[in-house]
Amino acid sequence: MKKRILFLISTTAFTFSSTTLFAATTQELKISLDVLWMLISAILVFFMQAGFAMVETGFTRAKNASNIIMKNIMDFAIGSLTFWLVGFGLMYGKDLKGIMGFSNFFLSQANPLTSNGIRLFSFWLFQTVFAATAATIVSGAVAERLRFSAYIIYSIVITGFIYPITGHWIWGGGWLNRLGMIDFAGSSVVHSVGGWAALIGASLLGPRTGKYITVNNKTYVKAIPGHNLPLAALGVFILWFGWFGFNAGSTLSGRSPGIALIAVTTNLAASSGAISSMIYTWLRYGKPDPTMTLNGAIAGLVAITAGCALVSPISSIAIGFIAGIIVVISIGFFDRVLHIDDPVGAISVHGVCGAFGTIAVAIFAQSKYAALSGFNEINGVIFGGSFRFLLIQAIGVLSTFLWAVISSSVLFILIKITVGLRVNIDEEIRGLDIDEHGVESYSGFQIFITQ
Amino acid sequence: MKKRILFLISTTAFTFSSTTLFAATTQELKISLDVLWMLISAILVFFMQAGFAMVETGFTRAKNASNIIMKNIMDFAIGSLTFWLVGFGLMYGKDLKGIMGFSNFFLSQANPLTSNGIRLFSFWLFQTVFAATAATIVSGAVAERLRFSAYIIYSIVITGFIYPITGHWIWGGGWLNRLGMIDFAGSSVVHSVGGWAALIGASLLGPRTGKYITVNNKTYVKAIPGHNLPLAALGVFILWFGWFGFNAGSTLSGRSPGIALIAVTTNLAASSGAISSMIYTWLRYGKPDPTMTLNGAIAGLVAITAGCALVSPISSIAIGFIAGIIVVISIGFFDRVLHIDDPVGAISVHGVCGAFGTIAVAIFAQSKYAALSGFNEINGVIFGGSFRFLLIQAIGVLSTFLWAVISSSVLFILIKITVGLRVNIDEEIRGLDIDEHGVESYSGFQIFITQ
Amino acid sequence: MKKRILFLISTTAFTFSSTTLFAATTQELKISLDVLWMLISAILVFFMQAGFAMVETGFTRAKNASNIIMKNIMDFAIGSLTFWLVGFGLMYGKDLKGIMGFSNFFLSQANPLTSNGIRLFSFWLFQTVFAATAATIVSGAVAERLRFSAYIIYSIVITGFIYPITGHWIWGGGWLNRLGMIDFAGSSVVHSVGGWAALIGASLLGPRTGKYITVNNKTYVKAIPGHNLPLAALGVFILWFGWFGFNAGSTLSGRSPGIALIAVTTNLAASSGAISSMIYTWLRYGKPDPTMTLNGAIAGLVAITAGCALVSPISSIAIGFIAGIIVVISIGFFDRVLHIDDPVGAISVHGVCGAFGTIAVAIFAQSKYAALSGFNEINGVIFGGSFRFLLIQAIGVLSTFLWAVISSSVLFILIKITVGLRVNIDEEIRGLDIDEHGVESYSGFQIFITQ
Repeated sequence: MKKRILFLISTTAFTFSSTTLFAATTQELKISLDVLWMLISAILVFFMQAGFAMVETGFTRAKNASNIIMKNIMDFAIGSLTFWLVGFGLMYGKDLKGIMGFSNFFLSQANPLTSNGIRLFSFWLFQTVFAATAATIVSGAVAERLRFSAYIIYSIVITGFIYPITGHWIWGGGWLNRLGMIDFAGSSVVHSVGGWAALIGASLLGPRTGKYITVNNKTYVKAIPGHNLPLAALGVFILWFGWFGFNAGSTLSGRSPGIALIAVTTNLAASSGAISSMIYTWLRYGKPDPTMTLNGAIAGLVAITAGCALVSPISSIAIGFIAGIIVVISIGFFDRVLHIDDPVGAISVHGVCGAFGTIAVAIFAQSKYAALSGFNEINGVIFGGSFRFLLIQAIGVLSTFLWAVISSSVLFILIKITVGLRVNIDEEIRGLDIDEHGVESYSGFQIFITQ
Repeated sequence: MKKRILFLISTTAFTFSSTTLFAATTQELKISLDVLWMLISAILVFFMQAGFAMVETGFTRAKNASNIIMKNIMDFAIGSLTFWLVGFGLMYGKDLKGIMGFSNFFLSQANPLTSNGIRLFSFWLFQTVFAATAATIVSGAVAERLRFSAYIIYSIVITGFIYPITGHWIWGGGWLNRLGMIDFAGSSVVHSVGGWAALIGASLLGPRTGKYITVNNKTYVKAIPGHNLPLAALGVFILWFGWFGFNAGSTLSGRSPGIALIAVTTNLAASSGAISSMIYTWLRYGKPDPTMTLNGAIAGLVAITAGCALVSPISSIAIGFIAGIIVVISIGFFDRVLHIDDPVGAISVHGVCGAFGTIAVAIFAQSKYAALSGFNEINGVIFGGSFRFLLIQAIGVLSTFLWAVISSSVLFILIKITVGLRVNIDEEIRGLDIDEHGVESYSGFQIFITQ
Repeated sequence: MKKRILFLISTTAFTFSSTTLFAATTQELKISLDVLWMLISAILVFFMQAGFAMVETGFTRAKNASNIIMKNIMDFAIGSLTFWLVGFGLMYGKDLKGIMGFSNFFLSQANPLTSNGIRLFSFWLFQTVFAATAATIVSGAVAERLRFSAYIIYSIVITGFIYPITGHWIWGGGWLNRLGMIDFAGSSVVHSVGGWAALIGASLLGPRTGKYITVNNKTYVKAIPGHNLPLAALGVFILWFGWFGFNAGSTLSGRSPGIALIAVTTNLAASSGAISSMIYTWLRYGKPDPTMTLNGAIAGLVAITAGCALVSPISSIAIGFIAGIIVVISIGFFDRVLHIDDPVGAISVHGVCGAFGTIAVAIFAQSKYAALSGFNEINGVIFGGSFRFLLIQAIGVLSTFLWAVISSSVLFILIKITVGLRVNIDEEIRGLDIDEHGVESYSGFQIFITQ
């Protein structure tokens, strides 16, 4: 009880009487280092929620800013509780035939008085911020027209059920894990699942009013610019910052020899994604486009996530570069060809580039680098690896796609026929801030709301 | 002098010749881990200053934004120097009859060439960012009408004198500490002290012009909306992010078995606070309110702060949930019943929820969890604990309230009769940015200043 | 491949089979702690990019916000790749007569399967974020009129060539290093180099249209206020936050006894810089100026950077205090006397205060404190040190100035005669966002673009 004062009297007073918990001192330090690294990483990943919130807010209109903020806070808050109650148990609980886990709901197996219990707490937090990342990806794609109550229900189901299932398949000892699929930090587990759920959400919702106008059988695509690009840019910097925790923390140990390599590949892929998007838009449209460049950096990050621990720095540059081009083409394709309205490009950034990143592992992995994170003789096809591994990764991508598409279709259809998916058109025109939340986001500023 | 180049020549060149400082290697690692964790946590808590600045700026009007920014930077800058010069010595110096400390001013006892000196530096920084947190809480409650010079004086006195006294009582070996009061990371020490000082400041200042209008003996309460809710939301995310350092860093050791549990309870309480505020406003006002939801998350964080190391995950959810409801009721009470104008809700968030959180320790603590942070057989009443412990916590809450109210009343009254508390009404209408600082915060934007 | 699932089955499964990499367990922990600290610091320094982006955006006009954002993202992305390809090899490669390094391009010597290789990855990332910091300093000084393509070329050359050369001289084993110059975390290496390049860039570009108006041989100086001071303030908080990594991470070891002292001196210097700028502007102009106060905090940080590991807390307060006054005088001098238009004050903050900070080491260093970071009997002149050391530091400052001025003059002149430096006046009036990037930064807001 007098813990704090003792400090100034004697240094040794700080030594917790933890001998009952940790037998040897070196062992104590090992566990401490692992737990601290997992928590520091989890804290960084938590902050990515702020990044997503700023990116999505900045890329959409001022009249919907508070609604987006509310969705971003709520998917994390609800996700934390749902993942604690159900999701974690389905993902990492006792395996049921490779399909799902089923035990350890609401951390029931966490005995705090064992080192295993302590590790479990830190592991749970790290996994929770990942689950919430998958959830928050969707909010950008359905922005400016999805009902708030629909989003609440969606958040519960994705963190409690949809995300944990593929999570179990790939990370929790399920069938894809056993097959040999590798998704080191979650290009598929987190980003593709979020991206494909975004695809379904945006498709079933339909586009924002005025986004696509058909006259004489020709559809005109209107760009609806975001209201605050500096805020969106801040969001991208925050995401990049947090992603170091996302990828390097996925070693789950502060003593992994792979951590430094992962930080390097993560940074290089993000850099080269931003560069290739900038160059590509400059060549194609005549001007280097800020929103695409920002998306390019995230695309590079999403794509390197699966393989960050297995590829060389040079390969990470290649992966990022390709992702930065893919994302621009893909955003154009969904917008101008398929007419699926995704205000922030989430489907392309997370879904498409997540799938690409997962495949890229089977192309670029090198055992010399992968060994650092404990992978045994894993090589991509251009470094002598097998096409069997490429096939396994493709199966993983396809399975993730099918699961996310089917499960989120059922979810969004059920929401549609119960509480309803979409706000009415008056509310959409006025902005969701006023009707859904009774506030103005920028009180006192002169804003063209009707835009 | 050639420190850096040596790195590439030989790995061992990195090993500092620190054998005179740290006898054994394992001992060296222990100290390093403790110091690093305290510093990393301090850095995270420092960043909470940005969080408070954004929350307070976003929740008030555009015409006062730079003034709020200046107050937030200055309370930290001044607080750092004052706490170094005086505050730290009063809080953690040699105990004088349990009332205050008195030694180690301007770190005079820190011998850098001992491991104790090194720990002292890191401990000082960690304590400094806490002192500045208490200070910055007030700036929101007195926003949009307090003179800048008055705020400077206030900042000096709270970090140099008011905060350190109760700090000594509870953390520095003073009488409440000896009595057995537990406030692990500062629900009372930091948040209630700031909240009650905010209560006195806001009361003595009076409301913003136009906030309460009395016609025919009936007082109408006008809502004065904030000008930038996305910025406020960013601030809440930053606070949540920094709070992991605030609570988990309060173990003061990177090897504490309690760190992971604390991170988990902190996150769950914040989540459940946001959820309960949202639900409560939805049920009561018909719409989920963004500013209340943001405040609910902070309320959950404030409330869990005292007990984060002593309660189970389930209990942390309960504590956050209750705090999220308390904060909405309390804000309404101060605003609509007492007519005390607190633009950001600081009194309720920090004062009231800080008091609740301190009491909650004596209700929800469980020895099984508390043992992780070195507490010996501490239980709350619902887990078989004594009502004596509950009484001690209540005495702590009451003493903190009385000290903060009395000392800050004297302070604010002295300021009032010397430099004056309040800007004149012309300046208030035009905004404090122009008259106090000669700037516009949003040059080029069309803003309704007269709002 | 089943890495993750193993966690829940057995704690020991987490122990990577890293015995081939790290012989002894204590050795493993040492390396892990060093690598983690270097990475955590690098991540913090990375985030300073967001700080610079927000400061520069906030201090300039709304019509150029996206252009500034693009420059800030691109100098980091391009800098990462260029420093990997060329810069790192020139800075830390095999020494060529003290002038430059020359080996280890694109990390060619990094063998991932050795502890040295792992350290090299973390060291590279830490050095990369430093190189990018030097680069990004310039973007503020040349804001609102430099062509985007010119900035791309500049970014490549400064991170690939200009920065690494003086970097080698001072940190890489070059002639200044051998002479005994001390610049612990880069007041000269990073900040002065950036500041002097900014001086040349801003001079060669000329002022923004309308900034200086000459009538009857008298030149009138127009203030062009920034459009978003809260964003700029957020940027300063982010910089301060990241600077803890910048300075304390420069120990390059998580076990350095100097880390805690560095964090303390860094914080005190920033605080006292903010305070002295505020006081100085208050006395001189009658009002405490927000933009100068923000710059004062950064000035204190820049100035303490060289000596953060070598001075006492009291001396750090003195250094910050002086820097906070220097920066205000210097900004006024460049603006009103020399008529060099530096929209954010980068020349004064980074160039001038960086030079001052480097000199300050030879004035304020104390062996008692310097010993913590492995410096042997280093004292400044007021603590019995030699004037020879002062002379060496002055030679370092002068050499850095000459190199940066000459090399960046050649660079900017070459850019001018090839792609051109400056946008045309129509584009400048409309804002660079529209013509260079085809976007509006604040779509929907009513903004006075012609300002």
